[in-house]
Amino acid sequence: MEIKELKNRALAANLALVKHNLVIFTWGNASEIDRENGLVAIKPGGIKYTDMTADDIVIVGLDGRIVEGKLKPSSDTPTHLELYRRFLKIGGIVHTHSRYATTFAQDKKPLPPYGTTHADYFHGEIPCTRELTAEEINSEYELNTGRVIAECHPDPDGVPAVFVAGHAPFTWGKSAMDAVYNSVVLEEIAQMALLMTRKEPVSQALLDKHYFRKHGKNAYYGQNYS
Amino acid sequence: MEIKELKNRALAANLALVKHNLVIFTWGNASEIDRENGLVAIKPGGIKYTDMTADDIVIVGLDGRIVEGKLKPSSDTPTHLELYRRFLKIGGIVHTHSRYATTFAQDKKPLPPYGTTHADYFHGEIPCTRELTAEEINSEYELNTGRVIAECHPDPDGVPAVFVAGHAPFTWGKSAMDAVYNSVVLEEIAQMALLMTRKEPVSQALLDKHYFRKHGKNAYYGQNYS
Amino acid sequence: MEIKELKNRALAANLALVKHNLVIFTWGNASEIDRENGLVAIKPGGIKYTDMTADDIVIVGLDGRIVEGKLKPSSDTPTHLELYRRFLKIGGIVHTHSRYATTFAQDKKPLPPYGTTHADYFHGEIPCTRELTAEEINSEYELNTGRVIAECHPDPDGVPAVFVAGHAPFTWGKSAMDAVYNSVVLEEIAQMALLMTRKEPVSQALLDKHYFRKHGKNAYYGQNYS
Amino acid sequence: MEIKELKNRALAANLALVKHNLVIFTWGNASEIDRENGLVAIKPGGIKYTDMTADDIVIVGLDGRIVEGKLKPSSDTPTHLELYRRFLKIGGIVHTHSRYATTFAQDKKPLPPYGTTHADYFHGEIPCTRELTAEEINSEYELNTGRVIAECHPDPDGVPAVFVAGHAPFTWGKSAMDAVYNSVVLEEIAQMALLMTRKEPVSQALLDKHYFRKHGKNAYYGQNYS
Repeated sequence: MEIKELKNRALAANLALVKHNLVIFTWGNASEIDRENGLVAIKPGGIKYTDMTADDIVIVGLDGRIVEGKLKPSSDTPTHLELYRRFLKIGGIVHTHSRYATTFAQDKKPLPPYGTTHADYFHGEIPCTRELTAEEINSEYELNTGRVIAECHPDPDGVPAVFVAGHAPFTWGKSAMDAVYNSVVLEEIAQMALLMTRKEPVSQALLDKHYFRKHGKNAYYGQNYS
Repeated sequence: MEIKELKNRALAANLALVKHNLVIFTWGNASEIDRENGLVAIKPGGIKYTDMTADDIVIVGLDGRIVEGKLKPSSDTPTHLELYRRFLKIGGIVHTHSRYATTFAQDKKPLPPYGTTHADYFHGEIPCTRELTAEEINSEYELNTGRVIAECHPDPDGVPAVFVAGHAPFTWGKSAMDAVYNSVVLEEIAQMALLMTRKEPVSQALLDKHYFRKHGKNAYYGQNYS
Repeated sequence: MEIKELKNRALAANLALVKHNLVIFTWGNASEIDRENGLVAIKPGGIKYTDMTADDIVIVGLDGRIVEGKLKPSSDTPTHLELYRRFLKIGGIVHTHSRYATTFAQDKKPLPPYGTTHADYFHGEIPCTRELTAEEINSEYELNTGRVIAECHPDPDGVPAVFVAGHAPFTWGKSAMDAVYNSVVLEEIAQMALLMTRKEPVSQALLDKHYFRKHGKNAYYGQNYS
Repeated sequence: MEIKELKNRALAANLALVKHNLVIFTWGNASEIDRENGLVAIKPGGIKYTDMTADDIVIVGLDGRIVEGKLKPSSDTPTHLELYRRFLKIGGIVHTHSRYATTFAQDKKPLPPYGTTHADYFHGEIPCTRELTAEEINSEYELNTGRVIAECHPDPDGVPAVFVAGHAPFTWGKSAMDAVYNSVVLEEIAQMALLMTRKEPVSQALLDKHYFRKHGKNAYYGQNYS
């Protein structure tokens, strides 16, 4: 992929975060990786979404060196890079402090599949990391955030989301825009879960049914044909 | 009714779901039936509302065969058709994953008539289906969803809504647009019920009064004259 | 006041209900009284706000006879008229099914003054009526709604709002627009009260201070001079 | 700073309160101080935001005398002035009755740092004042409000916000616009805290890490370089 195209895709995903009311001010960030060239396009740190252009998007290597860009990449870049190194099939990552998913992260609890809205996109419980130790916080904090995510996550391909304890959610997907989509769904299901009173997960059969209606070779949702 | 008119009516109802903030992305679907000709107009599966035109609306027979349309109908079509076959007076159906009604469905609980906003449109408790068995989920899932709705529902004409356990609501009405209206009311009364602390239903007298102010031969709400 | 002016004022208040997100569809109604001529201008029943013009506003006498207007007045008109007959200083009335105030009404509980936002506009607890008996519901329901409001209310001038048990709020004020304003405040304080965990009213001194900063001869809020 | 510039800055902050949905009607107020000249620009009392121009902004001295302006300053002016006299590093103050922060104030409880959204802007718990006595309310109420804020606050520079018991929040910052920013953050974290179920504060290490990523000489968030 051309670097220009990669930047445009990252920009579009970042702007979609605003449109879906997942970020305010300079909060949050989206990135996309070009696996072939090992290049990651990510939001610059502390820049307002309303002012951002494709030229502001920073290109970094998987080792964190800046390849192109006049601005500093998001301070959360080491978390993104660790996830790209550990979750080899993902193509885009989103981090927000969206209201309801962040409440879950602050409660330090996982989100079981309470309904088919969840099952349509996440094939199981969305995990919550353990809290980072003072040592992990005081040195290479953002890298260690990526490490505890990878450490806690049993199924990054089937469940493209996580809560970082005391912090906020990360989601991912085939592309940055796909990760945005998963952030929107996560916010919806987190809000519904917070409102529930009985909190019983759906059956494994219903979880499988809805997930595989939309994913895999037997998917038949939408214009797919099985 | 002309097929073109039936498609336009189904399209308008689907777009009204977006306007009333009941759906995002490609979620949800509305359909309308022409009882005389036994034809149902329904949203195509997985198509964004913003891109949809009347030509995209699919026409199917009550037995599920596609009569007209270049796209695949919604994967929920067998649920709609079962409801049209079982509830003979209804003319339109809506399915959404709207936030508050879906929370009720996830809680697997019925919604008693807690106030006159409910009584104005639903003459009694809105029921919740039982959970489907693994067998019902693994074979003819969408058809079986229609069956458990019909199985649980004591009064589809007086109470044009249901919660499908672990899933989301369905509503219906005289037309697709009338079903949209009932979806909006359902979302309002579900949100209020979630916020209540005492949760006592209204009296039968008040339920009857408000329902029959708006429905039946003695209705006197609005510009009706009794 | 000219009838035309009275209609325009009632229309403006009804449209303000939409702008402040207090009503949807044809729900709710605002009225204003011309005390000198004993005429009340009120929303016609079941008419959409988006279609309404000043000509649609109905003029009725305090005894309920229609003085001017080609449409039927709101079915809640007898409630408005009873309140105008009982609360002699009020000039406008608003009825809505706004979400949070209606939740309070459904919970059948009063709203104590939990903060200064309440105290700025309501000099004490907002009462909730008793439930109407089956007899009161089955005959002259709307008139009896006005009667139970008047019956329960210790201070209609200082506290221009009430919850009707199992139904929804009514507010009033010097004019229809003033009643709209009070409806907005009521919705805000009801929402905050539903979110509170400790629920201790403010002191009488604070209640008095804030109320009389804005009301009466020693008011000094805004551009008033004491 | 020119007085005209000071007025423009105060006006922009007041209008930003509307944009961020923190105020309705004439509620709330923002001010900015020019420390060099000892002049404070503040919203006039009871004026609608939509009608306000820079000419309406009132200039007062730290002792409360009106230096420039044809309108009466906000009735909360003595609170602002007391805070400027006691918190010598602050440059702007905002007062709102925003929904979630006001709910906290009505609950008369502090807000511990439950997550990094809090820690990014507030280096510790946001305190709540004690209730004012009847004597403090009945004489120099607004000045006494400032006094109880200063009395209760252990760290006005690190934690630029407070809840006034039974009333509402005040925030401050380097400028009026910075105080608006802190009001937005306060509203977000208050809403999340109200939704939480476990309510455990983050560790001191995480609180420090996030606060000092954004503040002080070692800040590295955004386009800062450490």
